[in-house]
Amino acid sequence: MKNWLQENNWKETEEQIKRGKGVAIIPIGSTEQHGLHLPVGTDTYVAITLAEAAALETDALIIPPLWFGWSPHHMVLPGTITIRAEVLVEYLFDVIKSMSEHGVKKFVLLNGHRIVNIIWMQLAAEKVQRELDVEIKIFDPAYMSKDIVKELGYGPVGHADEIESSHMLYRYEELVQIDKAVDNPISKKDLYSVDPAYEHDTLCYVPSSIKVAKAHAEKSGGTTGQPSKSSKEKGKIYHDHLVKNLVKVINQLQI
Amino acid sequence: MKNWLQENNWKETEEQIKRGKGVAIIPIGSTEQHGLHLPVGTDTYVAITLAEAAALETDALIIPPLWFGWSPHHMVLPGTITIRAEVLVEYLFDVIKSMSEHGVKKFVLLNGHRIVNIIWMQLAAEKVQRELDVEIKIFDPAYMSKDIVKELGYGPVGHADEIESSHMLYRYEELVQIDKAVDNPISKKDLYSVDPAYEHDTLCYVPSSIKVAKAHAEKSGGTTGQPSKSSKEKGKIYHDHLVKNLVKVINQLQI
Amino acid sequence: MKNWLQENNWKETEEQIKRGKGVAIIPIGSTEQHGLHLPVGTDTYVAITLAEAAALETDALIIPPLWFGWSPHHMVLPGTITIRAEVLVEYLFDVIKSMSEHGVKKFVLLNGHRIVNIIWMQLAAEKVQRELDVEIKIFDPAYMSKDIVKELGYGPVGHADEIESSHMLYRYEELVQIDKAVDNPISKKDLYSVDPAYEHDTLCYVPSSIKVAKAHAEKSGGTTGQPSKSSKEKGKIYHDHLVKNLVKVINQLQI
Amino acid sequence: MKNWLQENNWKETEEQIKRGKGVAIIPIGSTEQHGLHLPVGTDTYVAITLAEAAALETDALIIPPLWFGWSPHHMVLPGTITIRAEVLVEYLFDVIKSMSEHGVKKFVLLNGHRIVNIIWMQLAAEKVQRELDVEIKIFDPAYMSKDIVKELGYGPVGHADEIESSHMLYRYEELVQIDKAVDNPISKKDLYSVDPAYEHDTLCYVPSSIKVAKAHAEKSGGTTGQPSKSSKEKGKIYHDHLVKNLVKVINQLQI
Amino acid sequence: MKNWLQENNWKETEEQIKRGKGVAIIPIGSTEQHGLHLPVGTDTYVAITLAEAAALETDALIIPPLWFGWSPHHMVLPGTITIRAEVLVEYLFDVIKSMSEHGVKKFVLLNGHRIVNIIWMQLAAEKVQRELDVEIKIFDPAYMSKDIVKELGYGPVGHADEIESSHMLYRYEELVQIDKAVDNPISKKDLYSVDPAYEHDTLCYVPSSIKVAKAHAEKSGGTTGQPSKSSKEKGKIYHDHLVKNLVKVINQLQI
Amino acid sequence: MKNWLQENNWKETEEQIKRGKGVAIIPIGSTEQHGLHLPVGTDTYVAITLAEAAALETDALIIPPLWFGWSPHHMVLPGTITIRAEVLVEYLFDVIKSMSEHGVKKFVLLNGHRIVNIIWMQLAAEKVQRELDVEIKIFDPAYMSKDIVKELGYGPVGHADEIESSHMLYRYEELVQIDKAVDNPISKKDLYSVDPAYEHDTLCYVPSSIKVAKAHAEKSGGTTGQPSKSSKEKGKIYHDHLVKNLVKVINQLQI
Repeated sequence: MKNWLQENNWKETEEQIKRGKGVAIIPIGSTEQHGLHLPVGTDTYVAITLAEAAALETDALIIPPLWFGWSPHHMVLPGTITIRAEVLVEYLFDVIKSMSEHGVKKFVLLNGHRIVNIIWMQLAAEKVQRELDVEIKIFDPAYMSKDIVKELGYGPVGHADEIESSHMLYRYEELVQIDKAVDNPISKKDLYSVDPAYEHDTLCYVPSSIKVAKAHAEKSGGTTGQPSKSSKEKGKIYHDHLVKNLVKVINQLQI
Repeated sequence: MKNWLQENNWKETEEQIKRGKGVAIIPIGSTEQHGLHLPVGTDTYVAITLAEAAALETDALIIPPLWFGWSPHHMVLPGTITIRAEVLVEYLFDVIKSMSEHGVKKFVLLNGHRIVNIIWMQLAAEKVQRELDVEIKIFDPAYMSKDIVKELGYGPVGHADEIESSHMLYRYEELVQIDKAVDNPISKKDLYSVDPAYEHDTLCYVPSSIKVAKAHAEKSGGTTGQPSKSSKEKGKIYHDHLVKNLVKVINQLQI
Repeated sequence: MKNWLQENNWKETEEQIKRGKGVAIIPIGSTEQHGLHLPVGTDTYVAITLAEAAALETDALIIPPLWFGWSPHHMVLPGTITIRAEVLVEYLFDVIKSMSEHGVKKFVLLNGHRIVNIIWMQLAAEKVQRELDVEIKIFDPAYMSKDIVKELGYGPVGHADEIESSHMLYRYEELVQIDKAVDNPISKKDLYSVDPAYEHDTLCYVPSSIKVAKAHAEKSGGTTGQPSKSSKEKGKIYHDHLVKNLVKVINQLQI
Repeated sequence: MKNWLQENNWKETEEQIKRGKGVAIIPIGSTEQHGLHLPVGTDTYVAITLAEAAALETDALIIPPLWFGWSPHHMVLPGTITIRAEVLVEYLFDVIKSMSEHGVKKFVLLNGHRIVNIIWMQLAAEKVQRELDVEIKIFDPAYMSKDIVKELGYGPVGHADEIESSHMLYRYEELVQIDKAVDNPISKKDLYSVDPAYEHDTLCYVPSSIKVAKAHAEKSGGTTGQPSKSSKEKGKIYHDHLVKNLVKVINQLQI
Repeated sequence: MKNWLQENNWKETEEQIKRGKGVAIIPIGSTEQHGLHLPVGTDTYVAITLAEAAALETDALIIPPLWFGWSPHHMVLPGTITIRAEVLVEYLFDVIKSMSEHGVKKFVLLNGHRIVNIIWMQLAAEKVQRELDVEIKIFDPAYMSKDIVKELGYGPVGHADEIESSHMLYRYEELVQIDKAVDNPISKKDLYSVDPAYEHDTLCYVPSSIKVAKAHAEKSGGTTGQPSKSSKEKGKIYHDHLVKNLVKVINQLQI
Repeated sequence: MKNWLQENNWKETEEQIKRGKGVAIIPIGSTEQHGLHLPVGTDTYVAITLAEAAALETDALIIPPLWFGWSPHHMVLPGTITIRAEVLVEYLFDVIKSMSEHGVKKFVLLNGHRIVNIIWMQLAAEKVQRELDVEIKIFDPAYMSKDIVKELGYGPVGHADEIESSHMLYRYEELVQIDKAVDNPISKKDLYSVDPAYEHDTLCYVPSSIKVAKAHAEKSGGTTGQPSKSSKEKGKIYHDHLVKNLVKVINQLQI
């Protein structure tokens, strides 16, 4: 697929940048535990599939994926790789700086690692906007599905939950072992919710401490939410909704 | 007021830490342009007044205020001081580390500079929780007033808007020149809102680029929102609501 | 008091900068143990009161105070907050850089935390002078009272000593508990004195190691010097002398 | 392919680590111009195909690929992404640290970006060996084919040369446009050769300055060497030789 | 001379450390312009000769000299090399850390680059004392000759002045071209003197800005002071006084 | 010797830069254990003697030597000083930057600490070439004697081996105690050799871990190789060969 930068030679890259009207998508995920039923690459797969679907409709260039994100709170289970946030900021800065020197001035940071990666992406986005005269949008599936998740009958954003599991079932069924899923429903807390769709007063998100993360891991094998509610069909609705929004965002940049 | 650390000698500090059950509030604001009607210290004043009110009810210790925050997008108007986010993270780290060595293990980061400061506070919070075995809550007025702002008839979070102006009128009337306020109503954008109470799909917040900030500054003298709608009475409702929530958060930590 | 930046809106800031002829005072103190009779905020209070007095006579702008300094050697007693020197350098750099973009090109770094803060201030001063084309003066009470301290009958610079205690008695009597003061007279050492007024050969100042600081803390509750010799009247002489010098320094910059 | 970390859930990761006897391969490439006939992802593809082939024979775990390397000298042509060496060191440090906390203690850094990446990999390798008690081997195709490249009738290591082109033809024929290749034979220089197989006195490698790189780019579209000499068959000999060596290195670690 | 670390093998180093009772001298100078009559290595030569003389009497180990210091204000004339203060702190940290792992726990930082180097040495000294449990003394010729310089009839500390020139004449006559010296007497300034022997109120030292340094360079070829007053005999008095003090400091550490 | 920067005043420095046609040699060694028969300064002495010999023939300027290098793997024996590679990069950057501001644009980094220092020198070289428009050559004795070492009948590059020992015997006989030398012949390893003259497939160099280094230290007192084979005559052949190559490299830069 010629939207992926890595498959082009440098001359074709020039042409692809023009075709995509100077917009590039950077898929950024994580490699981290996702319970007993999802692969540790889940977040990156999510970013990849959304990027590919939207690139097909917009001709945007896709940068090779960043497989590692900020996951300090998931180090309690094997397979998790976490990079310090300050290193990720500099790493992404260099990716964007390099491409901006080749004429790409508009970027969509496509976050497959819902919520958590947003923090360092915001720092990186502000820094490159200020220093490099580029325009950055941060696209996060949790913030971009507020309109539909409740309609689907799904609970708040968790981890390896019914939302992610449905999405993976729809796009990467061969990597999902839904029979191994363990439910761990999210209990309401007074004045705290991670979910961007939460409508009431709340403290702000801070990644769980190791102590709290360990308790989760023991209870449910790393899951927060109700993966048993997953369905391929709802995964499709979720996927199509996100792609539609992503295409809209890219089109706004391509004008 | 003996809740303020700086007024105690070291022996009294020990006693005050005990009285406050090991909880400290760190008021963190900004020094930045707030339109033609509010002082540049607004965000820090907000953090100070909330801290004082909640400390009275909880005996929590208050750390001297951090007067400077992350304000790169307001440098277009005089009086704005911005510290790089990575410097703020290390600065706050040292404040918390110092107090944790004196036995304070629970902190409320009280953000007077709505939304923008949250980003680097989250990085700092994760870092100290992991390295120092402390517990951190981030309290932001915009996230903690989702329940009431619409009832007050106020628009989304802006800058030097009716929410901030009402609060300042109620608590620091002598510093407000409401007659100089210029309205600059927030227009709806497709797929983007800064307001945590926004109920629809949205891209994530990124501080405005200098270009966009300049346009604002010229249009309204730095205001986004409708300060003309401000009222001291509504400022009191807002203030009391925030203090009630803050007291609740502190009490949860004091158990 | 309109000399304080934080009380002005951005338009008034512009005017105040002009009135002060482009000179700003940055009061920099510490939050650290000051024996059993002085509050931990002592150094910052000192910087604040000197800044206010001199601003009244010169119209200089005052930047909100930096409450935390470099105090690694006082961490042995509660209430002390220390920031790493390298973080303070970057923090102050950003404060000065921000204000220099608004047209302030001359700064007096007003050190309330005698001697110790000078070190990192010198690094910051050199850096901003080289990179930002500003002019920096470092004003330290110990260096600026060499002419009078001996006349007052006071011993060398210590900590929470008769000099600081007299000054605090004169300016912040309500925060001083002079009856709790414990004397700990400074013994002469061969080839070492911290005091800038010392007239003989000496090694250079290095902050005490934790071991040495602990011994002090146990002996006198954190005091070095003879606070029992304090007097409000002498505090006034000291204060007036410093203000006179500070006004002179500012006036030299305002030409 | 279950050797790839990303396809496993955390429980399977545990098992795969055991199966691979605690050895992991980290494929590290680059995204950079490779003349008019090879894709910009060439170096990463090389690392991936070698990793997969050796993993099949050894059960070693493969970490998701690092698509970006240190390529400052190729920024003269589009599609090149370069990360600062000091950022790459910290990034790789965190990857290895994360996996070492999950029990992986032996790593092969598999460099697809011949020669250039070695430098920062050595720094990272020394650092993790000292701080984390792990064992690191750096495997570079140019150093690991000294025994055969001359037999194949190939010239010294260049860029997008007959060696790389043959390898890509054998493994990724669909990404190669050999008809577009431009030859740019390497001229002998007195006392300087980049090639590890060079037998005479030489200065050490330093990446070309931008000036020199530009001259190359204009002359041959980014190629150094003679891609016209490429052949799929020789690509196979080269590939098999490297895989044999890589398997041997992994086996030595698995004992 | 076996006091110099570099001349010993590792076994002899062990013995030399014992003989010197665990004390090491680190001679730290600069390479910077010293007017038209002194070599750019002057400050390092000063540190070397003092170290050698004191080592002879105390058996202290001498670490190889640091030829480069912090000299941003002398970059206006050729031959000056300046290292950023923050780099010097880390560099010296590693030197001390390395030797402390071999059992040396007491260090004299011997500053040949009067005044200017003290600043970063203080930061380094505090850092190593806190982190490595070592004891550090900073020995500076200007602070250690307050007792005699006036008796010699010399003016305040300048640059390439009569003090340094006399010392160099006495110890390195072959490197001095006293006939080329240009006088540039130091004029009294209100409230400012660099000289540690100055008895009146003063601002603190900040290295000259480039603008000021340039003016000096044009006026006198880089000299501040009156080198014409130099004399070998007075150089001897100065040298012997410093060596006597240095021996005393080392002896205090050797107990 | 007027080629040494430190012996010149700033005016003579200008002249010497011209005489040397803008080329400077930076001798960089190490201070580290070199077995029982060589001084810890060996690597720096090697760099110094080569620099002096080549400067005599080319008029190149010599910068004062850097006595400390990157030696983490030799910390197991006393007298070794190691600086972190990232600190060395910044330190050398500042040295080159300072001299480039005085008109020196071509540098030979002369490595006395064979192989190990090359790594960080390459990083520094790339950085200064990119940022400062200078030209850098890295000259390493092991890479520059591939043509003759086998002829001399010497084994591969080790540590304190017959090559270094012969060189030291020829140039610094008074510092060598050849009777104390302990042989520790280098055994062939499959797929690994540090020697740049090695003709077969090999992994890349990584400095030994502490564990491995300790084993060496116990076995042979820190030697790897066969110092018993040393000879002053062969040392002369080696030295003259290196000087001839170094002169050639400098001459190429002087055109």
